[in-house]
Amino acid sequence: MKKDIIKLKRTPKITSTYSVVGHLEKEGPLGEFFDEYSHDDKFGKDSWEKAESEMQKRALSGALKKSGFIDTEIDTLLAGDLLNQCVGSNYGLSSFDTGYLGLYGACSTCSEGLLIGSCLYGGGIVNNCAVVTSSHYCSSERQFRFPLEYGGQRTPTAQWTTTGAGAFILSENGRVEISEVMIGKVIDKGIKDISNMGAAMAPAAINTLKRFFLESEHSPDFFDLIVTGDLGYEGSEILKELLLSEGIDIRKNHVDCGLMVFDREGQDVHAGGSGCGCSAVVMASDIVPNLECGILKNVLFLGTGALMSPMSLSQGGSIPAVAHLVRLSSLVK
Amino acid sequence: MKKDIIKLKRTPKITSTYSVVGHLEKEGPLGEFFDEYSHDDKFGKDSWEKAESEMQKRALSGALKKSGFIDTEIDTLLAGDLLNQCVGSNYGLSSFDTGYLGLYGACSTCSEGLLIGSCLYGGGIVNNCAVVTSSHYCSSERQFRFPLEYGGQRTPTAQWTTTGAGAFILSENGRVEISEVMIGKVIDKGIKDISNMGAAMAPAAINTLKRFFLESEHSPDFFDLIVTGDLGYEGSEILKELLLSEGIDIRKNHVDCGLMVFDREGQDVHAGGSGCGCSAVVMASDIVPNLECGILKNVLFLGTGALMSPMSLSQGGSIPAVAHLVRLSSLVK
Repeated sequence: MKKDIIKLKRTPKITSTYSVVGHLEKEGPLGEFFDEYSHDDKFGKDSWEKAESEMQKRALSGALKKSGFIDTEIDTLLAGDLLNQCVGSNYGLSSFDTGYLGLYGACSTCSEGLLIGSCLYGGGIVNNCAVVTSSHYCSSERQFRFPLEYGGQRTPTAQWTTTGAGAFILSENGRVEISEVMIGKVIDKGIKDISNMGAAMAPAAINTLKRFFLESEHSPDFFDLIVTGDLGYEGSEILKELLLSEGIDIRKNHVDCGLMVFDREGQDVHAGGSGCGCSAVVMASDIVPNLECGILKNVLFLGTGALMSPMSLSQGGSIPAVAHLVRLSSLVK
Repeated sequence: MKKDIIKLKRTPKITSTYSVVGHLEKEGPLGEFFDEYSHDDKFGKDSWEKAESEMQKRALSGALKKSGFIDTEIDTLLAGDLLNQCVGSNYGLSSFDTGYLGLYGACSTCSEGLLIGSCLYGGGIVNNCAVVTSSHYCSSERQFRFPLEYGGQRTPTAQWTTTGAGAFILSENGRVEISEVMIGKVIDKGIKDISNMGAAMAPAAINTLKRFFLESEHSPDFFDLIVTGDLGYEGSEILKELLLSEGIDIRKNHVDCGLMVFDREGQDVHAGGSGCGCSAVVMASDIVPNLECGILKNVLFLGTGALMSPMSLSQGGSIPAVAHLVRLSSLVK
């Protein structure tokens, strides 16, 4: 029978990470762990879209510097964001002299990049690669919902797009290993509420986790954390409840990047954070560093993306979703 | 020194292809070779975007049928299109029970998919995968330029987005082999004319071809065809002239998918075809079949993408571009 878990024989290590965020993220629970922030979310630029590109540029520059590599030593970038035509990445990364593979997986893009990068490394195709993803609250609001000036009301299930970019260098050097990955399937359960992405994405996360635990030699308990990014409060509750009904209990070790990046009640972000940058900055600033120092040993990272389009929704479409899985292990004894 | 050409030890074969097009493409020079077409470009749907998704669905269904595989035997899809949030692919392929990796490379997406798919196969990560890309004249005009009803005038350098979807199955079976690939870099030479994509993309194609011939044991003459997709007339002329000034002469064996899919003068398409679907349907209906029967032996396919965004252009941005290279060889003696 075909196996869905891809076990890598040659396992890449996460050599360095770098996170760049906006002011609200800086004020949040993980504030002290981010590498860089902008007090006005503009990063010295005159549009939100350009600010997002600037975040990607700074994230990759920072991760390269930490890793000791220069751009020409990187075989390829794997990058994406939420903006139309992925301009956050295209413009942000055009000054680096290296290969470029553009991805679109909505909020799952960080996991998609880590997955493809790990497979390219695992198959001996590349030796060094970089994954960069971003999102920006203001550019996302304008594109997907309403311009900020409109002052639209948000519903309780709505998530707050994280302003942030995260970069990861994969190579042979590092204390965190990616040993297994699983490619997500597009799952569409008919959710049409643009303000409830969690409900749209939870079924995709359930599909991937069910397939993983059916095949894996490990039970959910084996993992210190099962990190979803980003289901928010609503989607996380659906995930845990529906998985429990299938006999998979992740209530003790499940965390969600959207619930980690903000103080949901104190910061008035409704159901929590979201966006390509959300899981990227949480992984880069918190999860990976905790694996690097051995506080965490085994982590499943499940990036979840709502493949939502305002055009499709206006034509009566529902919101398909996808969830890619990456298993990370600490090499520290 | 780091090599940019990725030589695959385990080489995937193109097992099957399938092309779905609109009526203008059907009336063009390659009309008789396409597998399927719609006389009204709607494919039975009530919006252009849904028609594009339907093309993707039919293209993958057709390629699967020809290959003998069913969807659950495919390890992953690699798919993308020009629409915001890549909805052509997300919605078109959600009914297939297989992994899904979303890509964004504008018109280079077909080559990006073949490249990543070949690397995943080459590295032993997957055994069977499928590449699917599409574009639709009417959905592209609405999104990137003006709705059709506006009746906007086109300039002579403008390209005509191809209505079409192409699918490719890669596995161990087939008479066409992918043996080498090269990842493109984002190149931005400051072109800002939305109606001259060829000029924006040519520098990216030049960058990739120069790097390829610097490293390759073969000269341009070795290849029966060097296929770009899609520079159109303007971009093709720039490519040939600037490469010649660098001592690389591809005038005898260069063809461009944008110039093959339409009769440029007879069909009033200005500088030729473009779009994620253009190179996909030309490769699927003409180039790969000619390799399969041995009429062609060695082909370089260079997908070129203008990473253009209306939002970025309105903010004064230029048009970055990328070009990915895939080398195809006939296994027929």
